[in-house]
Formats: sequence, structure tokens, C-alpha cells
Amino acid sequence: MRARPPGKVYLVGAGPGAPDLITLRGADALRRADIVFHDALVHPGTLALAARAEKVAVGKRCGKHATAQRFINKRLVDAARTHHVVVRLKGGDPLLFGRAQEEIAALQAAGIDYEIVPGVTAALAAGAELGISLTQRGAARSVAFVTPRVGVGQPKNDWVRSVAAADTAVIYMGAGDAAEIAAALIAHGVSRDTPAAIVENASLPEVRRILLTLEKLPQLEHYGFTGPTLIMLGRVLSPALAATEETAGLMACRTA
Amino acid sequence: MRARPPGKVYLVGAGPGAPDLITLRGADALRRADIVFHDALVHPGTLALAARAEKVAVGKRCGKHATAQRFINKRLVDAARTHHVVVRLKGGDPLLFGRAQEEIAALQAAGIDYEIVPGVTAALAAGAELGISLTQRGAARSVAFVTPRVGVGQPKNDWVRSVAAADTAVIYMGAGDAAEIAAALIAHGVSRDTPAAIVENASLPEVRRILLTLEKLPQLEHYGFTGPTLIMLGRVLSPALAATEETAGLMACRTA
Repeated sequence: MRARPPGKVYLVGAGPGAPDLITLRGADALRRADIVFHDALVHPGTLALAARAEKVAVGKRCGKHATAQRFINKRLVDAARTHHVVVRLKGGDPLLFGRAQEEIAALQAAGIDYEIVPGVTAALAAGAELGISLTQRGAARSVAFVTPRVGVGQPKNDWVRSVAAADTAVIYMGAGDAAEIAAALIAHGVSRDTPAAIVENASLPEVRRILLTLEKLPQLEHYGFTGPTLIMLGRVLSPALAATEETAGLMACRTA
Repeated sequence: MRARPPGKVYLVGAGPGAPDLITLRGADALRRADIVFHDALVHPGTLALAARAEKVAVGKRCGKHATAQRFINKRLVDAARTHHVVVRLKGGDPLLFGRAQEEIAALQAAGIDYEIVPGVTAALAAGAELGISLTQRGAARSVAFVTPRVGVGQPKNDWVRSVAAADTAVIYMGAGDAAEIAAALIAHGVSRDTPAAIVENASLPEVRRILLTLEKLPQLEHYGFTGPTLIMLGRVLSPALAATEETAGLMACRTA
């Protein structure tokens, strides 16, 4: 039996964006890191916690400048053979839409020690930005996190059924396909008037919050989102939407 | 117009249990806190971060020794009028099954400044304990977090539809009603063989992980869970369940 390599790989959730929304455990792993492999969207302030580490960007952003997943897996295994503390830093939580499973499988196959350090997922930071509980008592007892993007080879509309059945839904990686998403949901019978919110760059100073209804989601295609963006749907958003419409009404009155 | 009270209330997610799974921002709020109102299940190590604060337990545990929500709301408002930094510390994330909305509404009505500090929700720590991605590529593109408990006055079976429609489901606050939950899901058409996992005390040394199938959930009633416990369901659990059954088979052979 071969000796176990000396290194350990920490799969760390960086949280939703703001550097101080990483966990104490995640920050500690970064401080001790010899090398950090990070997603493209991780905040520079978060990377700065890894003061003495070599930093390697391996981010995938919607297929552009993608580093093949297989190559990332190999880099992690190789790094654990030559470094003590290896951090794989992912936006949000490593186990939600992060392809961590493929990296875990590669580490297991190579006999590398690893640890998963969970993180705050973007949906919760988006809820905090809106001041809205995703499972508000009386209005919601379920929340679904879905993505129309990942999962090649799966039935195309699985996510539609899941969104329709949940009281609150948060769609990850969907802002670029807002028109398609709205059409698919409306075709499935979700009400056109369902309150919706879009939150870009949750937890960062450059946050944008837009409140509208499901049928107006196609308007989003003109907003030019560049940061991580979530679409939220559900009755819990009604008061926030009503407040927005009231403000818009007031502004229209003042302009007239 | 009355002067704004000097205090600010931080609604802080303590994370899933382990004291070092709170965020840097949450830990900072605790360090600066003058008074902390905390749930029953928050770890003493987390509370210890609030070295100079008065600590008030206001936890509700399944109705036992409950502090009425209205009373908690009032205590928060009163505290903000007499203290500078008030922390409302909740297990997991404050916006998921935490009744934060009622506290936010009370603070807003009283004109009190507040901030929501998100946290790692228990489902993600449970996934980390199992080494399983809740949204594993190829197996799941949706995950639903539900509870059969909260939301008095809602249609009783909303949560069933949401679990059935999601690729992965995590049921909060359900371990005590495992038999009822299994019966409701099977009656709705969810396969008896659906892989299930129960994780008690995720992220703590006393963690327990049990893997079985949906139809065997009623067995859980003999386990005497005392810590926070989640039920997870979905195909992403298949490899872990298969590994457990293999081990059980081996043990049976050795005993025979």
C-alpha cells in the first residue's frame, strides 16, 4: 500500500460574495493554505485571507474561459501530493450547484484526505438583501433551489415542476435565460402575476434588487447583469413588490 | 418625529452547530454585542464569542418551554432602546424556518435599525457530513427545503407536493414525525425505495448519520434524537446508501 500523500484538500464555501460572509473555519483554512484554487467570482478580499498561498483561478463562468472539470480534479490531486494545505474555494456553498461531487470523487479515488467546509449560499444572502424570509410563516413552508443550467442529460423540464410545487423558488444561474424561464413556468401553469425578485451581487455594495411579476421577467434581458444573479419567485415577495409598485406610482405622479 | 433609538439589532445566523461555522460578520456582531437573545440550540462555544454581552435564552423547542414569539419581538424592541448592539442569534440561517419575518416586522414598526447576517443552513452541513452534493450534476438540479411543522393555517400537504417534485429534499423539524412523513409521501406516489438519510447534530462531534429507504423512516422513532435532525431524500443519496448496505451485509456475514 502506498503512503498517504501529506496534503489535505479543503473544499471551502466562500459564501455569497462579501469577504466577511465566509465562515470562521473557511477563513482559517485560507490562512493556513499553501495553494488556493478558486472560482472566477470569488471576491479579492476573500482571496486576501490566504496571505501566503499561491492562487490559481480555475473559474468557470457560463462556459467562457472554462477550465475543464477533469483538469481541475487533476490539479487538486497533484497539489495534495506536493502541498500540505490545499483549498478549493467555491462561491456560496460547495455542495450547491458547485460540481463538488466530481472533485470529491477524484480525491477519494486518489486516496487524498479532504474536508468540506460549508458556506452561506447566495439565496440566503439575497433574502437578507430583500429583508424577506424565504419560508415566512403562514406564506411558505417550502423553498426550492433550482437551476435550469446544469445536469446535461436530465429531462429538460424537471426544474419547472420543482419551481411550480414549491412555495418559494430560487433559480440559480438563470438570469441570462429569463425569457425562456418565464415562458416555461407560465406554460406549466404558474400564474403570470407571481411576485418575482432579481438580486444581483447579493451582499456586495453594488447589489441590485428588482421586483416585478413573473410575466415581466423577459425585461431582465436588458439589464446587463455581470455579477452573480438569482431569480426568486413566490408569495413571500408580495409585500416587497407592492411597496415597489407604490413607489413607482408615486414617482410617476411626481413626474406627471 | 421621535428620535431614532440608538440601538441596532443584528439578526444573526449561528450556522448549523459548530461554533466555527458562523460567519466572520456574525462573530464580529457577537463580539460587539451588549445583549444576545439566543435560541435554545445555539452552541455554548458560539455564545462564548459574545464575551461581554448579557445572554438571554428565548429558544423554542417544539413547543416545550416556549417563549411566545410576541414576547421575543417586544424584548428585541425594548433592548434596542437601551443597548447599542443587540444580537438575535438563531440556529442556521435566520431567514429559513426561523420566524425572522415576525421579528423584522416588529423592528420596522418600532423604527428600530436592523441588519440580517445570513448563516450556513443545517442542510448544507448535513450534506457535508455525508460528503454528498445536494445538487449533484446528472442526478439533481433542484433541492427543496421543507417543513411539515410551521405554517399553521396552510393546506396540510403543501410540503408533500414540494418534496415529490424536487430531485433532492431536505425536511427540517420532521424527525419526530418520521412515520407520518413517510406515509404521506408514499401515499402521494413517492417510491418506497427512495434513498433517505437522517443526520442529527450535523457539524458537531456527536453527529449521527443513518442511511435507509423512505419506507423504513418509521424506524427512526426508536432512535431518540435529541439534537437538531434533518431528513434528506433523493437519488443523490444512492451511493451512500449502497455503501451502508454493503457494510451491513458484511457485518451480518461476520456475525453469522
